[in-house]
Amino acid sequence: MSDITVGADALHAFLTRAYEGLGLPGEDAIRCAAQMVDAELRGVNSHGCVRFPVFADRLRRGTANPRPSVRTITDLPAYSLLDGDLGMSAVVGSRAMEVAMEKAAAAGIGACALRRSSHTGHVGYLAALALQKEMIGIVISGATGNLAPWGGADRLIGNNPVAFAVPSNQEFPIIFDMATSKVARGYVLLAARAGEPIPEGWALDPEGNPTTDAALGAKGTMLPLGGYKGYGLALMFSFLTSALSGNGFDSEQPDWLDADHPFALPLLAIAIDPGRCLGGDYQAAVDDAVRQVKASRLAPGFDEIRIPGEGAHRRYAAALKSGVGLKEAVFGDLNRIAAEVGAEPLAAS
Amino acid sequence: MSDITVGADALHAFLTRAYEGLGLPGEDAIRCAAQMVDAELRGVNSHGCVRFPVFADRLRRGTANPRPSVRTITDLPAYSLLDGDLGMSAVVGSRAMEVAMEKAAAAGIGACALRRSSHTGHVGYLAALALQKEMIGIVISGATGNLAPWGGADRLIGNNPVAFAVPSNQEFPIIFDMATSKVARGYVLLAARAGEPIPEGWALDPEGNPTTDAALGAKGTMLPLGGYKGYGLALMFSFLTSALSGNGFDSEQPDWLDADHPFALPLLAIAIDPGRCLGGDYQAAVDDAVRQVKASRLAPGFDEIRIPGEGAHRRYAAALKSGVGLKEAVFGDLNRIAAEVGAEPLAAS
Repeated sequence: MSDITVGADALHAFLTRAYEGLGLPGEDAIRCAAQMVDAELRGVNSHGCVRFPVFADRLRRGTANPRPSVRTITDLPAYSLLDGDLGMSAVVGSRAMEVAMEKAAAAGIGACALRRSSHTGHVGYLAALALQKEMIGIVISGATGNLAPWGGADRLIGNNPVAFAVPSNQEFPIIFDMATSKVARGYVLLAARAGEPIPEGWALDPEGNPTTDAALGAKGTMLPLGGYKGYGLALMFSFLTSALSGNGFDSEQPDWLDADHPFALPLLAIAIDPGRCLGGDYQAAVDDAVRQVKASRLAPGFDEIRIPGEGAHRRYAAALKSGVGLKEAVFGDLNRIAAEVGAEPLAAS
Repeated sequence: MSDITVGADALHAFLTRAYEGLGLPGEDAIRCAAQMVDAELRGVNSHGCVRFPVFADRLRRGTANPRPSVRTITDLPAYSLLDGDLGMSAVVGSRAMEVAMEKAAAAGIGACALRRSSHTGHVGYLAALALQKEMIGIVISGATGNLAPWGGADRLIGNNPVAFAVPSNQEFPIIFDMATSKVARGYVLLAARAGEPIPEGWALDPEGNPTTDAALGAKGTMLPLGGYKGYGLALMFSFLTSALSGNGFDSEQPDWLDADHPFALPLLAIAIDPGRCLGGDYQAAVDDAVRQVKASRLAPGFDEIRIPGEGAHRRYAAALKSGVGLKEAVFGDLNRIAAEVGAEPLAAS
């Protein structure tokens, strides 16, 4: 099954129309479309259009809110806690990072916890918002319980991801994000949707046995990054998101595919204003490190050292020209939903 | 070669005398001894007494400073940058966490970057200081360049560790720390000191080949946790410590064993006051998560789910009673140095 190629601008315009059809105000629809297109352009397709059908389902069933009223729960000099009222991540998650940046501008570092976001989406996108003000952005997100604790067999702990964005003078934005599972769960969902197998070491089946069947893996638990260390990181990130925002433990989220129940994720956004904090040229220090790292002797079998974000930026630049490749099933889902909400369809380029 | 057992109190008293013999004021000597004994008691012996000979060497050669003048470089409402004047970590690293906690008490979150600490030591110890005020503590430390970048063969990036301490009502303190290498470099040094081999996957030799020879691994590069992800984390932690504190890139540190040159590490301490930030009972939320995690169905081959810090606390409690086991070579080094600085020797219990 070959991919269908669509232009990035056409995809952005389509998704904006579709989100408007789902009840979002124009500006918020544009933000949601931008986050999803950004994921596709960077090759983070686990958080791209494959997610759209579930977002649409939730918005139509009222388990995600197209017009949230974001509420401030606590407001301290360098910290706020917001309730996202089940709004879309591109709307309420972006707001959290903006609040963290406002706090950091005043205090050096700033943080904003968010509860009850309908999802987080591509977390690197939120961290990268800090780069617009030449700040460091860090975003830790909760996720539905899909990891077993180390030595356990129940889906309890989210494969809670983290993203870092670091200002520099490089041609590409330095962005690193990772889930605390061996791979992001979206890749298992994508493989399951495409009927493809998954490598060993990604997931366990519902009984706790290793599996290469993506459909079984999607029903079972993800395996943590690096064994016990990934379990520890995921649990700490739960304490920094679910517990710190009053969102309830990761295990209390419904399954991602169960659109009948509200999916209410927490996140913690942190911004640091490095120029002021250092009292010097932070970006020059980052550039110096990048220069040294890229000049390393190569290990056998490699032809280049890459900085996190560099490969994604190349994919981004290439896909801006050549278009985004969507699985036929994903493309079909997009147009089925567009027809249902009365939005103009997406055309292959 | 069997271990030699010493009582924790006797070890603490001995190390205090030895650090005083090396020129530290009494209170600072006590802090240094406490950090090192804590590492031994918790089973983090890679950061215990095996490190003492190099600390002693540095203090005697003037490449570490027994009486540092800590200087404040920048001071913002929620953030400070300190220069540690090559002081011992238990002194200047603790000071950084205390400043972060003072900032957090005022602003919700607080951070303190530190440059020119002579070392960081057992990083969980510094994070756990936050628990005294029922705060969350996070410490990220720089390390000397000992990881190659992904696809490279040069020692450039520190296996920069992170530690989290989370307040709760559990009987054990929740503390999770990890290096971004597959294992902490101290375990390679410990194996090299004991003439023991290391498992595959821990280190590469100086030419970039996999090795099980601890001595070669100690001269080569450590392998990152989880491949590319560990590389990404280590580099982000460098940007948050070395670059953010103006400490110079990780690669610019001398080798740990080269005591002729100052070893000047950076760290970033972050404290969050969770009760105020949440406006509710944070510790109850953590307890609820812990209860759920510990109640998980077990996977085959496991008889218990442990929370990070729980196993270390059991080792701690047991070793408080039964004593700390030191390798004969390490025990010998301690008493050789004690004799040199005129401190009373350590006796086996």
